[in-house]
Amino acid sequence: MRASTLHAPRDIRVEEVPDAALRRPQDAVVQVVRACICGSDLWPYRGESPREPGQRTGHEFLGTVTDTGADVVTVAPGDLVVAPFTWSDGTCDYCADGLTTSCVNGGAWGTPGSDGGQGEAVRVPYADATLVKLPAAAAGDDRLLTALLSLADVLGTGHHAALGAGVRPGATVAVVGDGAVGLCGVLAARRLGAERIIVLGRHRVRTDLARAFGADEVVAERGDEAVAAVRELTDGHGAHAVIEAVGTEQSMRTAVEIARPGGAIGYVGVPHGSGSGLDLSVLFGRNITVRGGVAPVRTYIPELLPDVLDGTVDPSPLFDMPVDLDGVPEGYRAMDERRALKVLVRP
Amino acid sequence: MRASTLHAPRDIRVEEVPDAALRRPQDAVVQVVRACICGSDLWPYRGESPREPGQRTGHEFLGTVTDTGADVVTVAPGDLVVAPFTWSDGTCDYCADGLTTSCVNGGAWGTPGSDGGQGEAVRVPYADATLVKLPAAAAGDDRLLTALLSLADVLGTGHHAALGAGVRPGATVAVVGDGAVGLCGVLAARRLGAERIIVLGRHRVRTDLARAFGADEVVAERGDEAVAAVRELTDGHGAHAVIEAVGTEQSMRTAVEIARPGGAIGYVGVPHGSGSGLDLSVLFGRNITVRGGVAPVRTYIPELLPDVLDGTVDPSPLFDMPVDLDGVPEGYRAMDERRALKVLVRP
Repeated sequence: MRASTLHAPRDIRVEEVPDAALRRPQDAVVQVVRACICGSDLWPYRGESPREPGQRTGHEFLGTVTDTGADVVTVAPGDLVVAPFTWSDGTCDYCADGLTTSCVNGGAWGTPGSDGGQGEAVRVPYADATLVKLPAAAAGDDRLLTALLSLADVLGTGHHAALGAGVRPGATVAVVGDGAVGLCGVLAARRLGAERIIVLGRHRVRTDLARAFGADEVVAERGDEAVAAVRELTDGHGAHAVIEAVGTEQSMRTAVEIARPGGAIGYVGVPHGSGSGLDLSVLFGRNITVRGGVAPVRTYIPELLPDVLDGTVDPSPLFDMPVDLDGVPEGYRAMDERRALKVLVRP
Repeated sequence: MRASTLHAPRDIRVEEVPDAALRRPQDAVVQVVRACICGSDLWPYRGESPREPGQRTGHEFLGTVTDTGADVVTVAPGDLVVAPFTWSDGTCDYCADGLTTSCVNGGAWGTPGSDGGQGEAVRVPYADATLVKLPAAAAGDDRLLTALLSLADVLGTGHHAALGAGVRPGATVAVVGDGAVGLCGVLAARRLGAERIIVLGRHRVRTDLARAFGADEVVAERGDEAVAAVRELTDGHGAHAVIEAVGTEQSMRTAVEIARPGGAIGYVGVPHGSGSGLDLSVLFGRNITVRGGVAPVRTYIPELLPDVLDGTVDPSPLFDMPVDLDGVPEGYRAMDERRALKVLVRP
C-alpha cells in the first residue's frame, strides 16, 4: 500500500510501505476514506520534534473496516468508522476513568511500528475500544464525512479545552489562537452555553470563520496589547474561561493575563519551548486554574457525534484545502506557509 | 495599644502603636483574644518579602468585638468573632462568587495603614462581611478557642488545597509538606472522604501529628526518592489528588511527579523562587490539573465551623508553643529555627 513518510525535516514522501494487516485478534484494518494534516504534524515536519527516518505521518482518519481479528465484536468489514488519534484498550483503570490517552496499552498513530493516518490503510489495535461506528449513510455525504473527521482530533480537543477552561452557561470565554483547534474551541464553547466568546487571532480568514462558528468579538492585537484589549472588553476583569490553543510561552502568558480571578485556563496547545515557565506566583494571587493536556477524544466522540450528525456542530469549513495522497507533501507546505488552515486528504 | 511590628529582617518589636479605632461606619474594633504566627509570616521576617519599616505583623486572630460603626448589624460589642486573613466587602462580584480574596474593596491585615493580628486590637473594615460570630461559650474553652483560631487561615487554606486537588471519597491523596498548612490539608482531605493519605515530610513530631490527623503513610525521602516512594505505594500510578503546601520549585516539581495521570494538584504554598518554572510539557501528557492559590477562607468558615465546634475536626494540636504579646519575637525565632510548628499568641 502507499503512505506518507517523513525522512528528515521537510522531506516528506508518499511511498510503498507494507500493507496494513491484522497482527493480534483484537485488531482491525481500516481503509482510509478521509484523513487530514494537523497543526501538531508541523512540529516534526519542521524538525522541532524528533522522528525516526521513514516514520509514518498523520493521526486523524476515518474509513471503512476491511478486516477484523477473531476477538473483535463491535465493528465488522464494511462498517464506516472514525478513529481517535490514540488507540486504547478500553479496560484499564485510565480507560475506565475516560482518560484513554493514558491507557496502559495505548499508543498513537505514526509512532514507530504503527501505521499513520495519512496512508491507504491502518492497522487498528484494540479495535472494539478504539473505533467508533458511524452511520453508513454518511459515506455518501462529502460535507458530513469531512465534519465527522474532526472527531478524530480537533473537535474533541477543542471540547477538552473548553471543559478544562470550565466553560458553562453564562461564561465569558476567551480563545487564544485561531488555528483549527482554537476554532473548534469556539464551537465547543458555544455548544456548552458560553454567553460571550472573544477570539484572539490576526488571520482574517480564520477570525471570520471564528465569527461564523459563534465568536462575538475578535482581538487582533498581540501580547500586552491583546491583554489590554480583552480586559477592556470585560470591564477590567478578564474572561471566566480561557482556551489556550497555541502552546507557546507567549500564548500561555497571554492566557494567564486575560483570565479573570477564580477563572481557568484550558490548555491543549502542545507545549513548545522547554520549561515554558508558568509563573505560579502570578496564578496564586488570582486563583487561576490550569487544566488540560492531551485530549482523550475517544471518550468525547459519543457525546459529540450526535451534534455533528445533525449539523448542530459543523467543523467542515475548517478543511480548506483538499488533496489526494500524492498531494500530502504539498499539503504540509501549504500549512507550514499558512496558505491552508487544515488540509483534507482523500487517499 | 501594643502591637508587634517589623522594622528590618529579624528586627521584630512589640511597641506602642495608635489604638485601633473606628474610621468608617462599616468598621468594627476587635480586641484580640488569640492570634498566631503563620509560616508565611517568616518570609518578611527573613527579608524575603519586602515590608515597610514598622509595618504591623500577623494576619490570624479571633477576639471580642469592642466597638462597631453605625452600619454594622451582624456583630455587636461583646460578641466573640473570628476574622479570616483578608477582609472583604461581601457585595462585589468576586465576593458573590465566594472569591473573597479578590474582593475589589478587600485587603489583608498588616498591610500599610491597617492593624495586624499580632497586637491588642484590630480595626476590621466591612465587619458584617468579614467577621464570623462564634458561640459565646467557646470563650471559656481554651482548647476550642485554639482550634477555632485555625479558621482564620490554616484550616481554610488546607481545605482550599484539598478542593483544588479534587479530593473526593475514595481518592488517594498525597500531601507535600508537613507544616501547619500541610497538616490541615490532611484534616481537610480526611474530612472530604479521602480513602488513603500519604504525607511527605521528615520532621518526626510533625509526621506523627499527620498520622494523628488521619494520614496513613509517611514518606520521609526527598526529591526523586520521594517520588519513587509514592509511586511504589500507589502501584506506579501516583496520587489522584496532591496537596502542595510548601511553595518552592522543588516541592511543586515533586507534586507534579507524584500526581496520577488525570489527577490534580491543589497548591496553596505561597510561591517563592520567581518563575518557579512549571513545565507544562510534563503536565500536558498526563493531563494534570493545577488549581489553587490564596485561599478565600471567609467563604469556607461557615462550612468548617460546625465540625470544629463539635470536635470532628480539631487542629488545636498544631499550636505547640504559646506566648504572650511580649513573646512574639521569640515565637518568630522559634518558628524560624523550626523549634516550633505554630506559635499561639495570647495578648
